[in-house]
Amino acid sequence: MLKGHRTWIFDQKPKIISTGTVGGPFEAEGMLADDFDYLHSDLWLKQDSYEKAHRVMLEEACEKAINKGDLEKEKIQLFLAGDLINQITPTSFAAETLGAPYFGLFGACSTSMEGLALAAYIVNTKGANYILTGASSHNSAVEKQFRYPTEYGGQKPPTAQWTVTGAGVAIVSDHGKGPSITSATLGRVVNMGLSDPFNMGGAMAPAAVDTIETHLKERGIDPSYYDLIATGDLGHIGREVSFDLLKKHGVAIDEKKYQDCGLMIYREKQPVFAGASGTGCSAVVTYGHLLNRMKKGEIKRMLVVATGALLSPLTVQQNETIPCIAHAVSIENEDV
Amino acid sequence: MLKGHRTWIFDQKPKIISTGTVGGPFEAEGMLADDFDYLHSDLWLKQDSYEKAHRVMLEEACEKAINKGDLEKEKIQLFLAGDLINQITPTSFAAETLGAPYFGLFGACSTSMEGLALAAYIVNTKGANYILTGASSHNSAVEKQFRYPTEYGGQKPPTAQWTVTGAGVAIVSDHGKGPSITSATLGRVVNMGLSDPFNMGGAMAPAAVDTIETHLKERGIDPSYYDLIATGDLGHIGREVSFDLLKKHGVAIDEKKYQDCGLMIYREKQPVFAGASGTGCSAVVTYGHLLNRMKKGEIKRMLVVATGALLSPLTVQQNETIPCIAHAVSIENEDV
Repeated sequence: MLKGHRTWIFDQKPKIISTGTVGGPFEAEGMLADDFDYLHSDLWLKQDSYEKAHRVMLEEACEKAINKGDLEKEKIQLFLAGDLINQITPTSFAAETLGAPYFGLFGACSTSMEGLALAAYIVNTKGANYILTGASSHNSAVEKQFRYPTEYGGQKPPTAQWTVTGAGVAIVSDHGKGPSITSATLGRVVNMGLSDPFNMGGAMAPAAVDTIETHLKERGIDPSYYDLIATGDLGHIGREVSFDLLKKHGVAIDEKKYQDCGLMIYREKQPVFAGASGTGCSAVVTYGHLLNRMKKGEIKRMLVVATGALLSPLTVQQNETIPCIAHAVSIENEDV
Repeated sequence: MLKGHRTWIFDQKPKIISTGTVGGPFEAEGMLADDFDYLHSDLWLKQDSYEKAHRVMLEEACEKAINKGDLEKEKIQLFLAGDLINQITPTSFAAETLGAPYFGLFGACSTSMEGLALAAYIVNTKGANYILTGASSHNSAVEKQFRYPTEYGGQKPPTAQWTVTGAGVAIVSDHGKGPSITSATLGRVVNMGLSDPFNMGGAMAPAAVDTIETHLKERGIDPSYYDLIATGDLGHIGREVSFDLLKKHGVAIDEKKYQDCGLMIYREKQPVFAGASGTGCSAVVTYGHLLNRMKKGEIKRMLVVATGALLSPLTVQQNETIPCIAHAVSIENEDV
């Protein structure tokens, strides 16, 4: 089960039996529009606040996953989820609608894999038969909270990232069909002393490297074991920094097989600075696009390394550095 | 392992082998001063912000627990913790200091038992040998964030509660001595439509009742099985409402054995309105006072039901109701 200090091996091969992914209008113009279950043309989702829109998006993703999995919501024994909004209220309200037992998580943009690792662990050890896990973010709700009202038209440097409007969830079960979750390596906080909230990719890169190296070492495998190592969300800068760091540390990864969720979701012409980010980003890319690629047989084994910058507007104002973390989960499709 | 829909039975009897509890000057004047490992006379802990003081307090509690457990910090395989501050930054910074793998949790004042339930589950199923889990809050950091600057002298109604300044953590292990964690019942969100942030006890009471009833039913036990059912933190109003509700539902609990962490920590003369609350409250009361009572043989079996009001200042401003949750963990001392 536990291998080394930080890696769990899931010998019972819990499966992702269903997923739900919902996005907004900006995501509808992106590269992965076809991979969403539902895309909204209205950023408000007919609600009177962005936070309510955020909640509705997550509720829809949960409902989609439950319906696609041909389940009733009463079957769900645990909901493991979180978001970026203060006190993760959109997720807690969605938990109320779902009605399942609920553990709120906070891992910023690493939440997707914090939840998937825990879900796989608990299903693997028979603590639940069906766990719903996921993460979500809403661009405007996050901008309002972390930065300035968008109406101010504040300028951003090219190192900034664009928060995804999206909710991605998965149902993990010991019953049914789907790709297996085979292992997880738990992240620890890595803080290299960077403090620029407009360069989170650069800040998070060392955390991703720490987790990837630990994962390969503790599992005793080579990077070539995976068809894809997908970080999320480092953007252009963080991806480059982390790739260089890995190379320096002697971890030889084929550059084509080392990709970032934050660089997959939008088109080049979309003005997203260094790439996408947000709690929902790695969730929708993994549970939508990457699992679809698995279904098509394009990927057999992948490692998703969700990275989180655990800052807040207050820690930025107080001149704190940015504590970062990355959790890695390996998903393998044995049917292909 | 899983019993019913929401209860985990821990057949391997993971143990609480060590604890750390730190409090502030107001707690030093309270009823449980002798149960803290360390009490600060300075609310600032010599830091230049309340949030930094909050972080230091949690770091001290972790260090205390590790030292008392005669461990090195490198032995800790997982840190499961959270607090009330936006993006739980004090906990994330403490996780950096600790250096262990880290899953951030958010369950407001239910976080203590969210963490203990998960820690016990993971140790029980051999996913880790040593997990450090806990919760903390700092009165002034919370007041600043959730209410008004204290300098305004804003008036509060008698239904309000007083946020504890304290950090309480426990080390859960399959090695060593200490009381056993025997089961946990996971909470689901219960929202009766109350929206007054100055009466969280009343709002949370139905969530506590839901979890207690489910726990007794799924474990197939009578309330008299426990020497103590300790809710945390309902305060006077929530305790009374929940006790009446349980009685109405036919759950006969001896009133002396139904107590609230929020009513234990301070003296009657301390001006805490309806009682204490805050993420740290049930953590310090459980890991300090209640475990000390267990050691003395005064309690053999107890159920700690940590309750959380999953609101935020923004949801209050947006006229939302308060989603509430309660997680229950049973701790039994078989050596007494």
